[in-house]
Amino acid sequence: MSGRLTVVGVGPAGPEWITPEVAALLADATDLVGYGPYLERVAGAHHRVHASDNREELARAAHALDMAAEGRDVAVVSGGDPGVFAMAAAVFEALEGAQPGRWDAVAVEVLPGVSAMQAAAARLGAPLGNDFCAISLSDNLKPWSLIRRRVRLAAEADFAMAFYNPISRARPWQLGAALDIVREVQGPDTLVVLATAVGRGEREELRVSTLGEVDPAAANMSTLVIVGAASTRVLERRSGRRHLYTPRYVESAESQ
Amino acid sequence: MSGRLTVVGVGPAGPEWITPEVAALLADATDLVGYGPYLERVAGAHHRVHASDNREELARAAHALDMAAEGRDVAVVSGGDPGVFAMAAAVFEALEGAQPGRWDAVAVEVLPGVSAMQAAAARLGAPLGNDFCAISLSDNLKPWSLIRRRVRLAAEADFAMAFYNPISRARPWQLGAALDIVREVQGPDTLVVLATAVGRGEREELRVSTLGEVDPAAANMSTLVIVGAASTRVLERRSGRRHLYTPRYVESAESQ
Repeated sequence: MSGRLTVVGVGPAGPEWITPEVAALLADATDLVGYGPYLERVAGAHHRVHASDNREELARAAHALDMAAEGRDVAVVSGGDPGVFAMAAAVFEALEGAQPGRWDAVAVEVLPGVSAMQAAAARLGAPLGNDFCAISLSDNLKPWSLIRRRVRLAAEADFAMAFYNPISRARPWQLGAALDIVREVQGPDTLVVLATAVGRGEREELRVSTLGEVDPAAANMSTLVIVGAASTRVLERRSGRRHLYTPRYVESAESQ
Repeated sequence: MSGRLTVVGVGPAGPEWITPEVAALLADATDLVGYGPYLERVAGAHHRVHASDNREELARAAHALDMAAEGRDVAVVSGGDPGVFAMAAAVFEALEGAQPGRWDAVAVEVLPGVSAMQAAAARLGAPLGNDFCAISLSDNLKPWSLIRRRVRLAAEADFAMAFYNPISRARPWQLGAALDIVREVQGPDTLVVLATAVGRGEREELRVSTLGEVDPAAANMSTLVIVGAASTRVLERRSGRRHLYTPRYVESAESQ
């Protein structure tokens, strides 16, 4: 038997951010594997649904590969973009670590999606409109010393930054510590946004603050954090609407 | 009169990457503004189409805002994600630089899309599966000294990197120079991909190479460059298919 496994991203929230490519793949798939809340958003009557906890990515990937090896058409469902701090890397880790031959018959593909930082950025304006970086603040899989080093160098580079996995019950201090590192380099007026549950209706909250005033405790597991570059600014419209954006240009003096 | 201007991203290529949100907006829009080839992909019979050159972003934004101020429903069409090295920032620059009151009646929104780096990454596997950055190598709007500094610090941070605007007729040396900067820090086996015309059928080319061997002259204006982190690796399947991915984990020793 040979089947296929496709890792798909269903965006950060509603169906309006699911690409036609992903929608077509999901219509064909026999089995859906992933974190329960993501599966609930896309499961149809014809699917076998295999929900699991939001951790356990490797075990979930192995289960998906096993079903594909039995000839099923398996979709591994990620929120956002599966290639950005999501399931695609976990599937390849599982494949690389497998005993020889175990999943040779399984064809693996990845389909891109809209990631949380893009949805948050669009709501705000264009805070990632110049050079930027994306960093996961979870030290479950990499040492905090590396995260510290990356955040520090990113601040020195004056990147706008998107922080994924900023906080959880088991990791309560990492976001505050990361912001402290940025403060070693960038000024207190640097813009910081806690973008929570973007796209999820009334739960959506965009909290625009500064490095000097931001309260990390206002973030939760549904929060994507954007830290502006030095040039990131607020544009206030006559209507009262505020947009946040980073200009495409940088004056020569700012590069020193 | 008051109209609206919406900046939308139509992905890096075909309709399979256009979100339903953007498709619905385009169906309602009266006027499309943007680079000709992007407009050709989405223009319908009911649209007034205002194509322009791929430079001149500020003039294009002003034209779009003028039409919206006349009560039109204007879509500014970007390839990829409008918030990633595309038209969203240019629209806010135009707004901020306008004489007071000129476009006060225009409501501006941004809708996210799939950016070129995400489509390229998905085709390859998951090279952006851990921390990464995105840098435009165009020095039209920022000094090369800043680009040099950012590339250098990103290499020191061991980010995977996506280079946008790597090369053009007027900017022939920047990609080679950027790769030289990465070579000051990362080893010659570091993976480098020239991903050209991803999603455009037979024109698509994924050239997987290394820092030691890559030929910058093989890139063109349709190329997105991905430079791996130290841990980015190739996974070769029994079928002959090769996947490129960056594991989510990093061993403690690698953070030194």
